[in-house]
Amino acid sequence: MRHLIDPMDLSVKEIEHLLDLADDIILHKEKYQEVCKHKKLATLFFEPSTRTRLSFEAAMMELGGNVLGFSSANSSSATKGESVSDTVRVVSGYADIIAMRHPKEGAPYAATRKVTVPIINAGDGGHNHPTQTLTDLMTIRREKGRLNNLTIGMCGDLKFGRTVHSLIKAMSRYENINFIMISPEELCLPDYIIKDVFEKKNIKYKNVRTMEEVMPELDILYMTRVQKERFFNEADYIRLKDSFILDERKLVDAKKDLCIMHPLPRVNEISTKVDDDPRACYFKQALYGKYVRMALIMTLLGVSADEDR
Amino acid sequence: MRHLIDPMDLSVKEIEHLLDLADDIILHKEKYQEVCKHKKLATLFFEPSTRTRLSFEAAMMELGGNVLGFSSANSSSATKGESVSDTVRVVSGYADIIAMRHPKEGAPYAATRKVTVPIINAGDGGHNHPTQTLTDLMTIRREKGRLNNLTIGMCGDLKFGRTVHSLIKAMSRYENINFIMISPEELCLPDYIIKDVFEKKNIKYKNVRTMEEVMPELDILYMTRVQKERFFNEADYIRLKDSFILDERKLVDAKKDLCIMHPLPRVNEISTKVDDDPRACYFKQALYGKYVRMALIMTLLGVSADEDR
Amino acid sequence: MRHLIDPMDLSVKEIEHLLDLADDIILHKEKYQEVCKHKKLATLFFEPSTRTRLSFEAAMMELGGNVLGFSSANSSSATKGESVSDTVRVVSGYADIIAMRHPKEGAPYAATRKVTVPIINAGDGGHNHPTQTLTDLMTIRREKGRLNNLTIGMCGDLKFGRTVHSLIKAMSRYENINFIMISPEELCLPDYIIKDVFEKKNIKYKNVRTMEEVMPELDILYMTRVQKERFFNEADYIRLKDSFILDERKLVDAKKDLCIMHPLPRVNEISTKVDDDPRACYFKQALYGKYVRMALIMTLLGVSADEDR
Repeated sequence: MRHLIDPMDLSVKEIEHLLDLADDIILHKEKYQEVCKHKKLATLFFEPSTRTRLSFEAAMMELGGNVLGFSSANSSSATKGESVSDTVRVVSGYADIIAMRHPKEGAPYAATRKVTVPIINAGDGGHNHPTQTLTDLMTIRREKGRLNNLTIGMCGDLKFGRTVHSLIKAMSRYENINFIMISPEELCLPDYIIKDVFEKKNIKYKNVRTMEEVMPELDILYMTRVQKERFFNEADYIRLKDSFILDERKLVDAKKDLCIMHPLPRVNEISTKVDDDPRACYFKQALYGKYVRMALIMTLLGVSADEDR
Repeated sequence: MRHLIDPMDLSVKEIEHLLDLADDIILHKEKYQEVCKHKKLATLFFEPSTRTRLSFEAAMMELGGNVLGFSSANSSSATKGESVSDTVRVVSGYADIIAMRHPKEGAPYAATRKVTVPIINAGDGGHNHPTQTLTDLMTIRREKGRLNNLTIGMCGDLKFGRTVHSLIKAMSRYENINFIMISPEELCLPDYIIKDVFEKKNIKYKNVRTMEEVMPELDILYMTRVQKERFFNEADYIRLKDSFILDERKLVDAKKDLCIMHPLPRVNEISTKVDDDPRACYFKQALYGKYVRMALIMTLLGVSADEDR
Repeated sequence: MRHLIDPMDLSVKEIEHLLDLADDIILHKEKYQEVCKHKKLATLFFEPSTRTRLSFEAAMMELGGNVLGFSSANSSSATKGESVSDTVRVVSGYADIIAMRHPKEGAPYAATRKVTVPIINAGDGGHNHPTQTLTDLMTIRREKGRLNNLTIGMCGDLKFGRTVHSLIKAMSRYENINFIMISPEELCLPDYIIKDVFEKKNIKYKNVRTMEEVMPELDILYMTRVQKERFFNEADYIRLKDSFILDERKLVDAKKDLCIMHPLPRVNEISTKVDDDPRACYFKQALYGKYVRMALIMTLLGVSADEDR
């Protein structure tokens, strides 16, 4: 039995299979709409995350399966002092697969020890969120046609943004990736990623302070939210925040086939006027998330369209 | 693609079709129990409303469809500062139709601009609640056999009650409707409805202060809740509230085929002793709400019982 | 139409049928996976109880049925002042069967008066929780092979623990049951159970203060949570609590086929090291709860595997 706790649990080959399957699901939805009949997904969300939860639930339903679960800890037994491990062990008698989100890092991993069904980490604190990473990889592959030979700009909060960290690690396994980090100094990439990933693997990267100076080079622009509370003082926040807001004006020199991504929810870091630009891929990205979760659920459950018919 | 945001979005003809379909669903449930197979309804309730939400969910399930969503804003991404428009746009990738309730007037309309699936307004603040109006129309038509030639008494909070305002507008399109407004002065019908609806369309109406004085005339008695907090002072509330509570005694002079309606939830404005009176239609009304929502979902999705078999 | 409000609503014969059906469901899951197709269970949880709710939902789904409902009172109309009776009456138009949990004793019984579908009490305050009792009976019968000739130790909070009270009443109907009550004096069994059950029916029982002194006699050890807030002072709690925590050491003299039960959630009253002991049955117990609820739903709905094929 396999779980998915860390995006790096999957080999490059396994990711390729998942993305191929997700592509096939998009092309042949009918083929897959009963493959999980009589199977149940439990969504155990110890902290709320509507988008992720609904994406998992839609994924399971489009495979013909059922969904049960909870959407926040206060509707769970956690409030009575039960351990996560106990909750998950009991639920594993009620469902065939579990998607679990928890504010505490490592909670999903701890849950795997006693469990008899596959667990998918749907986000554990600032740590991992592997289905977001799979969503990002699927978006890049579908929009650019490849996962190598890319210049990827990452913009905003690169210090705390786990999606950025995971995506860097995941992309570092492909050939000829060039990373450009666009952030205020206060929110730049942690040293350990620079050392353990970029330097160890001899990957090209640079840090810059504005989008404009690198825009013409970018194949991918990955935007993230800059949260006010990350700054030491209001003055710094006000001085810096505009540099990390994407608007139409900043896109003037961008490539015609730039792919603009964002894990969502967006607050104001991308102007809504950019939404109509064909390069804006973030709503497509949210949609791809459903398909890659369908592929993942099928893979972990060991079901396939062929077997089922 | 059609949405349903305001009850007046639907023509008299379209309402007739919906009510005919709802009637047919009641007669031939089996014919409809798979028509929405493999389709999904998202219930996005940014404020709680159990009855309305469960009615939508039951409706979709009885059509063979699936349901996902959230039941209050604190389990949604709204708490992270996401716009309603973004939330709805993402969810439109996860569902085939959306029923949305929001405390802010106009939110469902705003949501329609970027969305690729039909949206049903399940109540936006004090503004519109079109499926309640459809429920009311269905109840009147089924219980009285017609939507014209009726004397309709409306009792309680006529100032703030959106269901009353919507029902008046909806009924104003039928022939020979006579409205009687029964309310304390503090809670009487807003002037704009008197001018824009009654006077402009030359519709008969009167205002009275007690149910008893008009009870023998009524074909319909539409009760609403009188909330204590609407009054300026406790003394007024206590003095007035009994006049707007329906009990058996006040029904002595009522017609034998009076139809008593209430949008529910009821607190104490109808004595529970009235529940067993055959003229009490409010629980049937709640049930009809399910059937008219089934008809609406089918219509907006463009599915029909015949096509599907 | 039948409801299940009090565990004693069911005769010994009816319980035997339910447990037989639950056993058959375990053996032949496929036979049952469509028997509730097109039927809906409403889970009305006026207070949260994840485990119980998910168990009911999984049960209905494994019978091919649908589920709708709410998981806490603040997502229900109760906050608008509606009576439970009204809520349930409306919901009975949306579902074929209702599982209801309520903090107020007697609420589920009150709800049955106006309702047109079967109601299952999923716990009403400190009062009844009949599906827990059925779960316990099923666990005992499956693990011990019988419901008579047993020595049952009950440990922990015997004063407030409704599961203990219900199980005593239920087991008192079988032959040759010997009860041993293991609790601090502050939390010992209420007098009325001793008088109305043990003395009236001439059942053997004793009270002890430690597990160790009776461990070798026990066929069943039923553990419950000792809540700190039940004690008059911290000192008493600290002095006493260890006596009512089960660990490996205390099991040294236990029978090889002892069956350790717990209604869950567990906090610290059973050491997690006991979990791997083959005598630990509490996770199996949670699983049996699903099957006995499947049997109950089928029975109250009047459906059977044979009719359906």
